[in-house]
Amino acid sequence: MTRAINFGAGPSALPLSVLEEAAQGLLNFKGTGIGIAEISHRSAEFGDFLTNLENLIRTQLNVPPTHSILFTQGGGCGQFSATVLNLLARHRLLHPELADEERTLDYVITGSWSKKAAEEARRLGGAKVNVAVDARPYSKDAKSFDNIPPHNAYTFSPDPALIYYCENETVDGVQFSNEDGAPTSFPFELLPPNTLQPIVADYSSSFMSRPIPRLADHAVIYAGAQKNIGPAGLTILIVRQDCIVDVDAAAKLGAVPVPLTMSYKTLADAKSLYNTPSVFSIYIAGLVLQRMKDQGGMPHYEEVNKRKAEKLYAVIKEGEEKGVFQAKVKEGAGRSWMNVVFDVLGEGALSKFISGAEAKGLKALKGHRSVGGVRASLYNAISEDQADQLIAYMKEYLAASTV
Amino acid sequence: MTRAINFGAGPSALPLSVLEEAAQGLLNFKGTGIGIAEISHRSAEFGDFLTNLENLIRTQLNVPPTHSILFTQGGGCGQFSATVLNLLARHRLLHPELADEERTLDYVITGSWSKKAAEEARRLGGAKVNVAVDARPYSKDAKSFDNIPPHNAYTFSPDPALIYYCENETVDGVQFSNEDGAPTSFPFELLPPNTLQPIVADYSSSFMSRPIPRLADHAVIYAGAQKNIGPAGLTILIVRQDCIVDVDAAAKLGAVPVPLTMSYKTLADAKSLYNTPSVFSIYIAGLVLQRMKDQGGMPHYEEVNKRKAEKLYAVIKEGEEKGVFQAKVKEGAGRSWMNVVFDVLGEGALSKFISGAEAKGLKALKGHRSVGGVRASLYNAISEDQADQLIAYMKEYLAASTV
Repeated sequence: MTRAINFGAGPSALPLSVLEEAAQGLLNFKGTGIGIAEISHRSAEFGDFLTNLENLIRTQLNVPPTHSILFTQGGGCGQFSATVLNLLARHRLLHPELADEERTLDYVITGSWSKKAAEEARRLGGAKVNVAVDARPYSKDAKSFDNIPPHNAYTFSPDPALIYYCENETVDGVQFSNEDGAPTSFPFELLPPNTLQPIVADYSSSFMSRPIPRLADHAVIYAGAQKNIGPAGLTILIVRQDCIVDVDAAAKLGAVPVPLTMSYKTLADAKSLYNTPSVFSIYIAGLVLQRMKDQGGMPHYEEVNKRKAEKLYAVIKEGEEKGVFQAKVKEGAGRSWMNVVFDVLGEGALSKFISGAEAKGLKALKGHRSVGGVRASLYNAISEDQADQLIAYMKEYLAASTV
Repeated sequence: MTRAINFGAGPSALPLSVLEEAAQGLLNFKGTGIGIAEISHRSAEFGDFLTNLENLIRTQLNVPPTHSILFTQGGGCGQFSATVLNLLARHRLLHPELADEERTLDYVITGSWSKKAAEEARRLGGAKVNVAVDARPYSKDAKSFDNIPPHNAYTFSPDPALIYYCENETVDGVQFSNEDGAPTSFPFELLPPNTLQPIVADYSSSFMSRPIPRLADHAVIYAGAQKNIGPAGLTILIVRQDCIVDVDAAAKLGAVPVPLTMSYKTLADAKSLYNTPSVFSIYIAGLVLQRMKDQGGMPHYEEVNKRKAEKLYAVIKEGEEKGVFQAKVKEGAGRSWMNVVFDVLGEGALSKFISGAEAKGLKALKGHRSVGGVRASLYNAISEDQADQLIAYMKEYLAASTV
C-alpha cells in the first residue's frame, strides 16, 4: 500500500502511526470490546479520554485557569455565528441600556475567512459591524488579500462587543506574526491594557502548530480540528470564563436568541457533553496530541514548522528570480507557515507542475478555486522530509524550466 | 480480540464487517493513497461517495423528488433549534402580517426528547408553543412517559408554523406505530388533507430500521446517525422543498435570525458542502447503508427488528408473570422496537442482572439515568442471534430467580 503525501488544506494529512492505532481502536477501544465509533460518550473510558485531551491542550498551549476548553461540532462556520451570539449576549448583560445601533462588532479582515465571518455578523444583526481594518487596500493590486496590514491601519471601536481576527487565512496564505509587537502581529498594544477585551481569534488552520501569543488576552480562540490535529467534525474552543454567559437572561433583555447547542454556557455546564459529541474525531485528536507531546510539544513543532516554511519560501524566491514561480503574499507582509501559496508562471505551466507533482505522489497541491495557483499546506503531520520532497521536486521543475 | 455485544442506546454497535473495511479506509480511501479522515471533502472521490449515500437513502426509504436529503452536524439537539428557526422563517414569509403571539408551534410530547425539543422552542421565542398532546396524563402514574396517547387526545392549532413529534423516544422506549391509522400511530388523519403541513419528525433512534409511514407528508425528518447507521457527528435531514426558504428575507420581516450553518437553504444550495462535513461519519454511514441494501433493505430490517423486539418483550412478559421483570411501557401503548426498557424487581436485583450480563459480554444495558432500570437497544447492527443471546441470559436469570 502506497501512501501519498497529502498537502491538502483540510481535511488534511494525519500521522500514519495515529491512523494505525485508530484502525485497532475502531474494533476495540481500550480493551472494552467495543469500538471507539460505537462506545457511549458517557462511558468512563471515553470520559477519561476526553479529560486527558483537555489536559494535553491545556499543558501544551499553557492555557490559564481563567479559560475553559470546550469541544463542539459545526466547524469554523458554526463559530462565525456562535462567537457573535455569545458575545452580543455578554455585551447586552454588561450594557442593557444600549440600543442595537449603539453596539459594535469589530472585524479585522485579512482574507476570505475573516471576510465571511464579518458577513455572518451582518446577517445576524443586533449590532453594527465595524471593519477595524481591511487588508485589500494595502495589497499590490488594491484588491487582493496578500498582506497583514501595518498597526497604524487599524481603527477599533471604543467598547465593542467583539474584536475578531483570523490568525491564519487558509485560502490566501497570510498569517499574523507570532512575535508580539512585530509589524505583522495582531496589534494588542492598540487596545486598552488591563481590561477584559472581547478578542476572538479563528485559529482553525494554525492551532497547535506553534505557541499562541498573548493567549490569556483572548476572549475566545477557536479551531476546527481538521488541519493540524484531527479529522473533520470536531471544533475546539478556548473561552475566557467572563464570556460564558447566561444567554437566556440576555435574550430577555432583547439579545438575539442563541440556539442551545451554540451557547457556550450549555457546553461549559455539561463539560462538552450536553449532547453526543463527534466521538471518533475526539479520539483521533487525542492520539495526535499525545504524539505531539511525546515529540516535544509546541517548541518542537514551532521549530520544524518554521524551517519547513522557510525552505519552501526560499525555493519560491529562487523561482521568482528565474521567472518561474511567484509568491502570492508579499515578502515581509505576513506569509503563512501553514499554507504557502504561489503561482507557476507561463501558459499551461500550472497544470504541468501539478501533474508532475502527482506523478511523484505529492498530492492536493491545487490552490483554492477562488485564488488559483498552488497551495502547499504544511500542517504538523507533514514531516520535514515530506516538505523536502516537495522542495526537491520544485528544484527539478525549476532546473527543467530554465535550461 | 473479543468483541462485546453492545446494547448501548447511542453511540451504538456497528457491523463488524463495516469496521474492518473502515480500518482499511483510514489508511487508504479508494486507492487514492490518502485516508478517509484526511481526504478533501471537495475531492471527486468523496463527492461520488456522498452522492451514492444520498441515493442509498433515497431508494431504500422511497424519498420522493419533492424532498431533499441533506447532511449536517450537531445532532438532534441542533435540529431542535434548526427546525424551529427554518419553519418560523417559512411561516413569516407565508404570513408576514402576523405578530409573534399569533404564530404557534405544535408539540406532541411523548418522552424526554420531545419535551426537550418543546423547551428549546420556548427558549427561542418568535411564537407560542402549543402542546398538542402530553402523554403523561395517560400514563399509569399520571407522570411517566409510558405510552403513545390515543388520537382523540390531540389538539392541533389551525395554522401552526410547525407540528413536532419524536417517532421513537430513546430514553423512555415509546414509539409510534408504523401502521397508518393504528391507535398508537401519528394521527395524520386529524390534519387537513391535501395541504403542505409543517410536520417535523425526530427519527434519530429509528431511522432506517423500518419504512417511514407517510414520509411524503412530512416537512422535515431528521436523524442523528449514531443509532442505526453510523458514528456520532453526522445528522441526516429529509426536507420538503417548500421548507427550504430564504431565511434572510424572513429575518428582514422580523423573524429570528438563523445562524448560517443552521439554514436549510445554505445546506441545500451547497449540496451539504457549505463547510467541511464530518467526512469519516459520512463514510461509515455509506458503508452501513450499502450493507443494508445488500441484505434486503427496509423490508428485511423491518422483519428482523420486529422479531427481535417481539421475542424480547415476550421474555419480559414471562418475567412479569413471575414478579421478576416489569416492562416500563404499557402493553399495546406504543412499545419501541429499538429501545426496550424494563425493571428488574427486587432489592439489589438490577445490579445483579447487569453484572451477570456483563460477565457474558452483554454490555451497556443500564437504563438512562433519568428512568433507571434496563434498556436494551436493538438497533440494526444487533443481529437476531445477538438479541437471542440476551434473551437466553434473561431466561437463565428468570429460572434462577424463581427456584
